[in-house]
Amino acid sequence: MSRPDLPPETAWGPLLDLALAEDLGRAGDITSCAVVGEHVRASGRIVARHAGVIAGLPLAGRVLRRLERAVEFRPAVEDGERVSADAVLASVAGPARALLAGERVALNLLGHLSGIATATRAQVEAVAGTRATIVDTRKTTPGLRALEKYAVRCGGGRNHRFGLDDAVLVKDNHVAVAGGIGDAVRRAREGLGHLVRVEVEITRIDQLEEAIAAGADVVLLDNFAVGELYRAVELARGRVLLEASGGITPRTVRAVAESGVDLISIGWLTHSAPALDVALDFD
Amino acid sequence: MSRPDLPPETAWGPLLDLALAEDLGRAGDITSCAVVGEHVRASGRIVARHAGVIAGLPLAGRVLRRLERAVEFRPAVEDGERVSADAVLASVAGPARALLAGERVALNLLGHLSGIATATRAQVEAVAGTRATIVDTRKTTPGLRALEKYAVRCGGGRNHRFGLDDAVLVKDNHVAVAGGIGDAVRRAREGLGHLVRVEVEITRIDQLEEAIAAGADVVLLDNFAVGELYRAVELARGRVLLEASGGITPRTVRAVAESGVDLISIGWLTHSAPALDVALDFD
Amino acid sequence: MSRPDLPPETAWGPLLDLALAEDLGRAGDITSCAVVGEHVRASGRIVARHAGVIAGLPLAGRVLRRLERAVEFRPAVEDGERVSADAVLASVAGPARALLAGERVALNLLGHLSGIATATRAQVEAVAGTRATIVDTRKTTPGLRALEKYAVRCGGGRNHRFGLDDAVLVKDNHVAVAGGIGDAVRRAREGLGHLVRVEVEITRIDQLEEAIAAGADVVLLDNFAVGELYRAVELARGRVLLEASGGITPRTVRAVAESGVDLISIGWLTHSAPALDVALDFD
Amino acid sequence: MSRPDLPPETAWGPLLDLALAEDLGRAGDITSCAVVGEHVRASGRIVARHAGVIAGLPLAGRVLRRLERAVEFRPAVEDGERVSADAVLASVAGPARALLAGERVALNLLGHLSGIATATRAQVEAVAGTRATIVDTRKTTPGLRALEKYAVRCGGGRNHRFGLDDAVLVKDNHVAVAGGIGDAVRRAREGLGHLVRVEVEITRIDQLEEAIAAGADVVLLDNFAVGELYRAVELARGRVLLEASGGITPRTVRAVAESGVDLISIGWLTHSAPALDVALDFD
Amino acid sequence: MSRPDLPPETAWGPLLDLALAEDLGRAGDITSCAVVGEHVRASGRIVARHAGVIAGLPLAGRVLRRLERAVEFRPAVEDGERVSADAVLASVAGPARALLAGERVALNLLGHLSGIATATRAQVEAVAGTRATIVDTRKTTPGLRALEKYAVRCGGGRNHRFGLDDAVLVKDNHVAVAGGIGDAVRRAREGLGHLVRVEVEITRIDQLEEAIAAGADVVLLDNFAVGELYRAVELARGRVLLEASGGITPRTVRAVAESGVDLISIGWLTHSAPALDVALDFD
Amino acid sequence: MSRPDLPPETAWGPLLDLALAEDLGRAGDITSCAVVGEHVRASGRIVARHAGVIAGLPLAGRVLRRLERAVEFRPAVEDGERVSADAVLASVAGPARALLAGERVALNLLGHLSGIATATRAQVEAVAGTRATIVDTRKTTPGLRALEKYAVRCGGGRNHRFGLDDAVLVKDNHVAVAGGIGDAVRRAREGLGHLVRVEVEITRIDQLEEAIAAGADVVLLDNFAVGELYRAVELARGRVLLEASGGITPRTVRAVAESGVDLISIGWLTHSAPALDVALDFD
Repeated sequence: MSRPDLPPETAWGPLLDLALAEDLGRAGDITSCAVVGEHVRASGRIVARHAGVIAGLPLAGRVLRRLERAVEFRPAVEDGERVSADAVLASVAGPARALLAGERVALNLLGHLSGIATATRAQVEAVAGTRATIVDTRKTTPGLRALEKYAVRCGGGRNHRFGLDDAVLVKDNHVAVAGGIGDAVRRAREGLGHLVRVEVEITRIDQLEEAIAAGADVVLLDNFAVGELYRAVELARGRVLLEASGGITPRTVRAVAESGVDLISIGWLTHSAPALDVALDFD
Repeated sequence: MSRPDLPPETAWGPLLDLALAEDLGRAGDITSCAVVGEHVRASGRIVARHAGVIAGLPLAGRVLRRLERAVEFRPAVEDGERVSADAVLASVAGPARALLAGERVALNLLGHLSGIATATRAQVEAVAGTRATIVDTRKTTPGLRALEKYAVRCGGGRNHRFGLDDAVLVKDNHVAVAGGIGDAVRRAREGLGHLVRVEVEITRIDQLEEAIAAGADVVLLDNFAVGELYRAVELARGRVLLEASGGITPRTVRAVAESGVDLISIGWLTHSAPALDVALDFD
Repeated sequence: MSRPDLPPETAWGPLLDLALAEDLGRAGDITSCAVVGEHVRASGRIVARHAGVIAGLPLAGRVLRRLERAVEFRPAVEDGERVSADAVLASVAGPARALLAGERVALNLLGHLSGIATATRAQVEAVAGTRATIVDTRKTTPGLRALEKYAVRCGGGRNHRFGLDDAVLVKDNHVAVAGGIGDAVRRAREGLGHLVRVEVEITRIDQLEEAIAAGADVVLLDNFAVGELYRAVELARGRVLLEASGGITPRTVRAVAESGVDLISIGWLTHSAPALDVALDFD
Repeated sequence: MSRPDLPPETAWGPLLDLALAEDLGRAGDITSCAVVGEHVRASGRIVARHAGVIAGLPLAGRVLRRLERAVEFRPAVEDGERVSADAVLASVAGPARALLAGERVALNLLGHLSGIATATRAQVEAVAGTRATIVDTRKTTPGLRALEKYAVRCGGGRNHRFGLDDAVLVKDNHVAVAGGIGDAVRRAREGLGHLVRVEVEITRIDQLEEAIAAGADVVLLDNFAVGELYRAVELARGRVLLEASGGITPRTVRAVAESGVDLISIGWLTHSAPALDVALDFD
Repeated sequence: MSRPDLPPETAWGPLLDLALAEDLGRAGDITSCAVVGEHVRASGRIVARHAGVIAGLPLAGRVLRRLERAVEFRPAVEDGERVSADAVLASVAGPARALLAGERVALNLLGHLSGIATATRAQVEAVAGTRATIVDTRKTTPGLRALEKYAVRCGGGRNHRFGLDDAVLVKDNHVAVAGGIGDAVRRAREGLGHLVRVEVEITRIDQLEEAIAAGADVVLLDNFAVGELYRAVELARGRVLLEASGGITPRTVRAVAESGVDLISIGWLTHSAPALDVALDFD
Repeated sequence: MSRPDLPPETAWGPLLDLALAEDLGRAGDITSCAVVGEHVRASGRIVARHAGVIAGLPLAGRVLRRLERAVEFRPAVEDGERVSADAVLASVAGPARALLAGERVALNLLGHLSGIATATRAQVEAVAGTRATIVDTRKTTPGLRALEKYAVRCGGGRNHRFGLDDAVLVKDNHVAVAGGIGDAVRRAREGLGHLVRVEVEITRIDQLEEAIAAGADVVLLDNFAVGELYRAVELARGRVLLEASGGITPRTVRAVAESGVDLISIGWLTHSAPALDVALDFD
């Protein structure tokens, strides 16, 4: 799996500023300043305590070097790589105070994103050999969307919408207001630019034909039983992409994928994946 | 359990700005704008799909009202309350577009914080009747520390340090550099103001006496077996607060608490608690 | 033509802050403060000195009310409306100092955006009755993209990409690096999510078939002579959207449109449209 | 014409941040990331497609290098220089992705500012040999004032006020409120510091003497016919600077200048000058 | 003395945000939250413990109301007024927690600015009856310039330059580089707009004639003995404004003023004036 | 006295941005740009005109280098050092324009902080040999708290609370609301984390025992006469730290210290210390 591309710094720099400011506060790392001499140097290794898929390692380096340019950061693996427990992820060296001051923010970021990548990879592997692609949702931690979606890519998943503005997703509430799936999709199609795709959520299989007829690019099958998914695939005959969503768990994801749907979106990849346990071991 | 106090807006306002900007992007909610008339009003209820402890409900209201002043938001429960599955948390009403545009950010925040509160409450209840207090750590999601620590309070836990600057925590790396626990604690004690408490981490029980002698206010017992915790409590004889930390799980937390330690700090409350499933059901 | 939806405030609020700060400086409107009494009230009308299409009128109101809540702003027309010379666009009333202090920023914004809307509308009308849609480009004034694209919508045009991240546009430089149109399009198709459309720029008509075969959604015909456009339409047979671009002027736009292309993108709508002359006439 | 000095980065850095963020969005340049290998290098030349006067070239370099330090940017001309069509303005080299990602923002800035410089230069040359100086106004694009005024200087013009706070300009609305030109000027003169100059706008030649008597440093002759300008020059006898303003076009500017006024202010230099066509040609 | 006009919020809003954030930190006013019930209301009066001149009272109100809209703030005096010891400056009422949380920032601002106004007023009165105006300098507290210059106006002084950009002040270092006072002034005069005044600093009386001849608007007499000031006034014969500067103290200011100089600039008004003692007395 | 540690850049970087922006404005240092050639280099020394204790010297270097990387800054003393009048603090060299443009902000910061350090040192020395430590308060200049508290450390003092959130300080207003000192302290103790210390202010000596009994860590003796301080020390018998506060002047500080109190807090160190006179002498 090739390494995905980091989002642009404009999309995560301000968050990093907040993160450093909230940890350093007004007085900084008072423990290290009191206990560790200014010119003491240290070195160490960032390690994974458990096996997993890595995401955010370059960002961990950025955090440390933002505190202190003199920090050297040498990654030993790339984002998107699977590592075993106790794997060394990077070696670091520099002023001891800077390493101690930046350690927690760097690890928090790395552990959080690697947790998402690890969870994603498990789902991706669970559906291997089917036509299904694992995708994320907008159920992300506030402020971290660009990074969490990057972590999903590191795990081998693909990204669904990045926000409310880059694709249309007509949900049941929209349909209720618009007076029908067809009308809703048509209004969206007519009102928007030629590069905007239109997806529509349906909750009953009898809405599928209307959605296709109205010109949807993708149909989201919300909380469909697996049997219904098979039926939807059959009915659609490849005319639209089909996305299964809602309550899909590691236990059910394979069965869902085997139905022949194109996409499986899973909210918990970003809102509930446990962090990967990473640490900075000083030499 | 009385409702904890929200952190000041200065501590979460900028994050909220990032969260709204990342979801709305450059063009906003193109689906709702295309499909829903500008003057359509809607109402609905924010509900919990599973049982849990609520945290962040007022913030969800802020998100919606930041998009549109005309949104009415009436909470039905308070932060810190335990609710059952399908409980109504709040009712909302206002311009349909604003509700649809703000729904996801509001729910993401509420679900994330309520997940932390719910996980915390379970640990708090698991140690009920012991002297142990459940506390959090600095292993928080970057940028969300003030909010996540608030969620821990909603769950009935207490907060450990908010950052590197508001208390001293001498860790093994500091000790190694300083040349000994006693020296490290003394340096910290001497160099800092009278309102700063000093905690020191030890990894072996034979370090306990030195830590106490050096004047530590709190001793963190890192990865101690339960038997060793009992022994540490016995040795300390109430001269310092004792904090157990490292690898404590829901299964082991009770046994840890019964050792008589004063504090149990748990990183996964903030870095790995799954989100509580919350939704906005339109009427 | 229905009124387009304003972009979200998150997409233009920071620019407005910059604009007000740059005009008010450190001391504010020293002329009005020196000459006009604090409690003097004034009223007036925002008028168009020339005929045109209006865009940004609600933002002009926002500017004035951001300086002073007590300003009343009553629009007389809606964004997207065509007005004749000397038309009243809005009436304003409030503290004279606030009106004088905010006048220039409000008018600069309104005149700039209305200039774009006016230029766009002329092109839209020039191609009326053809299948062509007028679209903008990324050649926008730095920092004003969301607003300028809104102005294009007010003029009756549609929006092309909002940025580098919301659709793929493979240009000749990409093709050169990738080793061919087909490879470039395929790589893009494979590497990206299901909601991302892929457009490819070609400079010679013999590249068209390869672009279509590779799965492009849209083909941009860069600097094609009108005769070649006819030929491209014929060859494409509706299998892809065709976009004409490059050097299209008010004189040539109709001829271009009659070729049957789907889209005509025009950079000067946003980078070179002259401002509409608007003024605030005090009563 | 010597090269003018760039405004300080504090005056345009935040705008540049907005401009990059709006183009890169949450996911960055997805086309280049998908199609161009990470380590591919490229080089090229920034060229002017039409003849003009250059402004903003160092800023274009800053944009590219802000994305990627490794970009080399070698200007071939200086801001303020006139170039012919197809002139090479700068050569660039570096990681292909960074060049592709930064190209549009860099060119948008350069084209916009060079358009202003080019328009300004034409007016400056039109009035050559007269005593008139071409100056700008506050009719600038919101957020870009410092840069646009720099572009005017690159064109050989001078700057009028930078904002409401750095000089007094008493307009007819102020006069109406103050009860007369004399009173208005005197109030301004008395209320402000010794480094603040006072300019007053008059709309009829019979107000000139009152303005001079009240101590104005500069009198703005608003929408005066050319004949009236001659008369104003004669009446003023050098006691004040005279500024002609209002509806001055390339066709009339020479006649205006020959009247003997000191200053000619032209709003359209900044609000309506078309962009200079610039491009980045890859090798 | 009429009340001066507050600088625009764009010039002090960001500083206020920093000030509130630095006091409230991540957890807010933990004392009040722990000790004072959420619904407890309180009222009180802001009082001056010593006599002085008030500046910043409306800003104190803004601070409190920014924390909590429900706070009522009723000023009893206006900025620029002299008050006696124990004077009531304003009455406040609202939620007790908000008043307690905002008290310190509000008072710090009010005390600091009133200290400057008080010091300024003393100098203004010391020179009453002479032609001298007391002005400030750029020796202000970083980040507070607009506010501190406002405080000087509240004290009855006038403002010198607000920054490096709103007037020319040629100092000895510039002269050394330029090769002479005349050349330096001429270069400045030629290179800048018609609204920019030019002041030049001289350190010896024999430079005065050259400065005047070169066209300076103002000459700053740096560290001149009082006798030399008289001589400078005599030599200048009203052809330029003369500013005395350097080491002027409350004891010497009257003698300096009687020399007939137009302006006396005093750095310590803004960098060393002690704060006025103000307090919030709860009822 | 060892050099204290600078606060983290996150705590003062935004203030520095404001400070530079407010001085440079929209057009920058127009004098130097007009008078000094772009390639002229200069060098000089930052000197103290009076004796004092230095604080902020590295920040002065940061200011200059933020304007221009090519500036060399070589400190000759360290923060916290006492220097005599005319001492050279640092030597600087680089582009003349950058040195001239950054000089004032750099010196304003250095002079302000050194003034605080100097004032603090005098108090620290006045109490030498007693057990009393000199501490600051929250009476700081808005926006500069982290820096001013650093300056206090440079002077040899210690820091009291950094904000409302890092320790409890129960004041008389809190006590009034809570219904008694004991209740107030207990509520604070119960509601907060184990690392938060609790200080309580008393105004009468008969409140001391209640405060101690309730578990206060520190008792602030507000405006106690010196005789009462002796009595409080006697009564407390070392069970709590005692802090004297209120109206303590350089004349009384020694007498206060001799009473045996542990801490003496002095507001005027930060709100009223005059700036140290520092200058940049060009070679």
